[in-house]
Amino acid sequence: MGADIWFTEHQTPDVTLGLRIIEVLWQEDTPYQHLLVADTEAYGRLLTLDGAVQTTDRDEFFYHEMIAHVPLTIHPHPQRVAVVGGGDGGVIREILRHPGVKAAHLVEIDERVVAVARQFFPELSAELDNPRAHVHLVDGIQWMREQGAQAEKLDVVIIDSTDPVGAATGLFGEAFYRSVYEALAPDGILVAQTESPMLQPHLIRHAQAAMRAVFPHVHLYLAPVPTYPSGWWSFSLGSKGPQPADARTVSLPTRYWTPAIQRAAFVLPPFVSELLQT
Amino acid sequence: MGADIWFTEHQTPDVTLGLRIIEVLWQEDTPYQHLLVADTEAYGRLLTLDGAVQTTDRDEFFYHEMIAHVPLTIHPHPQRVAVVGGGDGGVIREILRHPGVKAAHLVEIDERVVAVARQFFPELSAELDNPRAHVHLVDGIQWMREQGAQAEKLDVVIIDSTDPVGAATGLFGEAFYRSVYEALAPDGILVAQTESPMLQPHLIRHAQAAMRAVFPHVHLYLAPVPTYPSGWWSFSLGSKGPQPADARTVSLPTRYWTPAIQRAAFVLPPFVSELLQT
Repeated sequence: MGADIWFTEHQTPDVTLGLRIIEVLWQEDTPYQHLLVADTEAYGRLLTLDGAVQTTDRDEFFYHEMIAHVPLTIHPHPQRVAVVGGGDGGVIREILRHPGVKAAHLVEIDERVVAVARQFFPELSAELDNPRAHVHLVDGIQWMREQGAQAEKLDVVIIDSTDPVGAATGLFGEAFYRSVYEALAPDGILVAQTESPMLQPHLIRHAQAAMRAVFPHVHLYLAPVPTYPSGWWSFSLGSKGPQPADARTVSLPTRYWTPAIQRAAFVLPPFVSELLQT
Repeated sequence: MGADIWFTEHQTPDVTLGLRIIEVLWQEDTPYQHLLVADTEAYGRLLTLDGAVQTTDRDEFFYHEMIAHVPLTIHPHPQRVAVVGGGDGGVIREILRHPGVKAAHLVEIDERVVAVARQFFPELSAELDNPRAHVHLVDGIQWMREQGAQAEKLDVVIIDSTDPVGAATGLFGEAFYRSVYEALAPDGILVAQTESPMLQPHLIRHAQAAMRAVFPHVHLYLAPVPTYPSGWWSFSLGSKGPQPADARTVSLPTRYWTPAIQRAAFVLPPFVSELLQT
């Protein structure tokens, strides 16, 4: 049974998730946030930032597969991809499963997240050493603004941010989405994690409205992520052209994502459709 | 913010869900289990049995809609339906939205669950007074065995049980599924809640194998249920004939279920397909 030590996340002021801890492996205050690594009985190795679960060994695949493969198969031929946040490397790993991708940029403000992932999460971070991966330890908002002036545009941008508090707040607004739009090539696609339809509906509404102010086509899709609040998560997709129905059918070594799961993920229940309309 | 009083469910020995309590409204030990009713900040009114969340006002619709409308639209013309467990009345309410249903039987072993639902959950239990609803406060295993000898067979049987411990253990095995098979008419369909693919994969494997030993057609479908362990739940469907692809398209006043959501719910991710094969 292990020692009676628990990690508790206050997912909202009124809901907690508790995970029994085998051992706390690392804790530090980085310049940006509190970082913890621990081994849990139920979900294997756990990474938290400011007390919020970012990833666990046993359920990371839901999130990383769904945030990466959906835009990468909707885009007709993605070659240049950027991830803002996502310092653990899990999204980069999934992106690099697509052989057509020539460059996958990781833009992470907190170098300690990358360093700790390299040390404690080798399965997530190994592909950061892939020659096609480029790690930029800088502010994503600034980096994205500079990309707009570059001749070579991005095909897909993925916002793998923490919750919209602190450093990540600016990643959920219209101004940032506009700088992403400017950095994207004509067929470009943006995907952002936009929290739980059950516990953060206001955030989804806000992000979708901001995205619609910038992109001609905006969609929402859903997937389970057991250790995230409510266990059920949303992703917002803004596109300059390609549509979910255009997705290429590719075969990948995945545990959650498939082309059929992707189509199913865009089917919205009535209460979610309604929250997008208000 | 309310008082700092929390309900905590040990969803497994290693995972907890905590809900901030506004007020505990009722607690008792029935002959079968401990029963609690409380108002929570995040999910409204809560019913627990033996410390496990059964239902909350704000997320009950996921579970009740998905356990009821899936078999009732796959069956070509369901008229006689039985629910084993489900004393709160939520499944009966959804069943009676189908005008073709002539009789909906609730077979609940613990009369206190029904009484407390009538008192504290009027929105769930109101349809128990519908003339088409028939409440049987008896052991579901015994009741089902007797149905096999009846001339009039059932079209759909729904197992809305607690977790497979205590009184509910017998509701997950081959012997019980066989008595359901005997009680069903030629086009008959059984649906049972079969726990979380993330946290109880062994249970799904066990229930599916037992169902396959009895029914010629067995399927699994999935839906989010935020307050259940991992927030993601499975339902096992055994059919004498009708298939998920045959489902009738009907319009119902639902918040999660739609015909398209239903089709999407049968799309299984690779790791779930694999657990069914082993």
